[in-house]
Amino acid sequence: MDAGLMASGLSGTERTRHRRLREQGRTDRAALFAVLRAGFVCHLGVVVDGAPMVVPTVYGFDDSFLYFHGSVASRSLAGGRTVCVTVTHVDGLVLARSVFEHGVNYRSAMVYGLPRALSGEAKVEGLRVLTEHAAPGQWDYARRPSRKELAATVIFALSLDEASVKVAEGPPADGDGPDASLGLWAGVVPLEVVSRPPVPDPALPDGLPVPAHIAALFPPGAGREPM
Amino acid sequence: MDAGLMASGLSGTERTRHRRLREQGRTDRAALFAVLRAGFVCHLGVVVDGAPMVVPTVYGFDDSFLYFHGSVASRSLAGGRTVCVTVTHVDGLVLARSVFEHGVNYRSAMVYGLPRALSGEAKVEGLRVLTEHAAPGQWDYARRPSRKELAATVIFALSLDEASVKVAEGPPADGDGPDASLGLWAGVVPLEVVSRPPVPDPALPDGLPVPAHIAALFPPGAGREPM
Repeated sequence: MDAGLMASGLSGTERTRHRRLREQGRTDRAALFAVLRAGFVCHLGVVVDGAPMVVPTVYGFDDSFLYFHGSVASRSLAGGRTVCVTVTHVDGLVLARSVFEHGVNYRSAMVYGLPRALSGEAKVEGLRVLTEHAAPGQWDYARRPSRKELAATVIFALSLDEASVKVAEGPPADGDGPDASLGLWAGVVPLEVVSRPPVPDPALPDGLPVPAHIAALFPPGAGREPM
Repeated sequence: MDAGLMASGLSGTERTRHRRLREQGRTDRAALFAVLRAGFVCHLGVVVDGAPMVVPTVYGFDDSFLYFHGSVASRSLAGGRTVCVTVTHVDGLVLARSVFEHGVNYRSAMVYGLPRALSGEAKVEGLRVLTEHAAPGQWDYARRPSRKELAATVIFALSLDEASVKVAEGPPADGDGPDASLGLWAGVVPLEVVSRPPVPDPALPDGLPVPAHIAALFPPGAGREPM
């Protein structure tokens, strides 16, 4: 991937030296897995009738593949078409001394490839991986899919071989330039996704406690980052 | 937009009656503006060499247009190509009694159209709208772009005429089906984006206070939702 491909915030297309330091492409698998681990909703891009379509959907992954659901995909990917799956975490708003240097701190992964619709045991395994990634513990706790439900579910596997990661972090880039003398405040407003205490389904009988695996997974304020 | 286009979480492609109630397409402008207002990072889909590319970028909007930055766009949209801009807010993880009914509560907007690269005063105004949306108050506080910086900035305007909104909310859909008798806990883990106290650029002189417009915009825990 061209490290310059990604529009990266409020700043324009010119990449300054500082900007290049703030934003870095990463190629190691560990960086990819770290980004994938920190969320469970991706944006899936497909081409339909020559136009792009971008839809949010849930994903999971293992060492080799990203798994995602597809109603959109089941219709538009039947012929075997390239997709782009992007996972983005917004970590902060970067407030610089100049409008031009404003930006966003983020971690983002892009995965390109030809997804393959799974069937049989591979489909069940893909669904398990996806479920356990988004809602750990629920595969064993909830009722597993019936044959009919499985038939109504489309799970795609996308190789992680063609993937790139980009991370922007740190303070604004104009702290050592001429704008530093303007006397303006500059810095970062950190942003974080937090979970709130689980809300029981009103249809539940009174007094049914939140299972330990759910309570443990989503401690309020612990900063699990789904997007 | 086909209300069924959007893959919507852990559940499969079959749309049940409940699911249709949980997930609703909305066509009113107020719903569109509410989704756009709640964030400042979108996922921009473009077609490059026949393949989709999905990149996160910052946006702003007014009554008629969405404005976004483009380094990616400046290269791939020069010929005037349709884009899809998707803005998604993940509001909760829906834990059902069955794996099949698991899902995500979300608000999402999709905008399709032919973006137009702005120039002259329209470009400055587009950048102002974008800046004021993502970082309200900064257009007046920070140093405005120089002619050179403006020349290095590409701002696109995308009509809001072709847009759709989809919202999924509420408890899981299997509270009144046969699975309700399983005795399993079900509910929603709400998710929210929160801001943390601003972190000053280490390059700032000591004692420069956070300006009031920044402190006021990002009260910790106030739930401004950038994604």
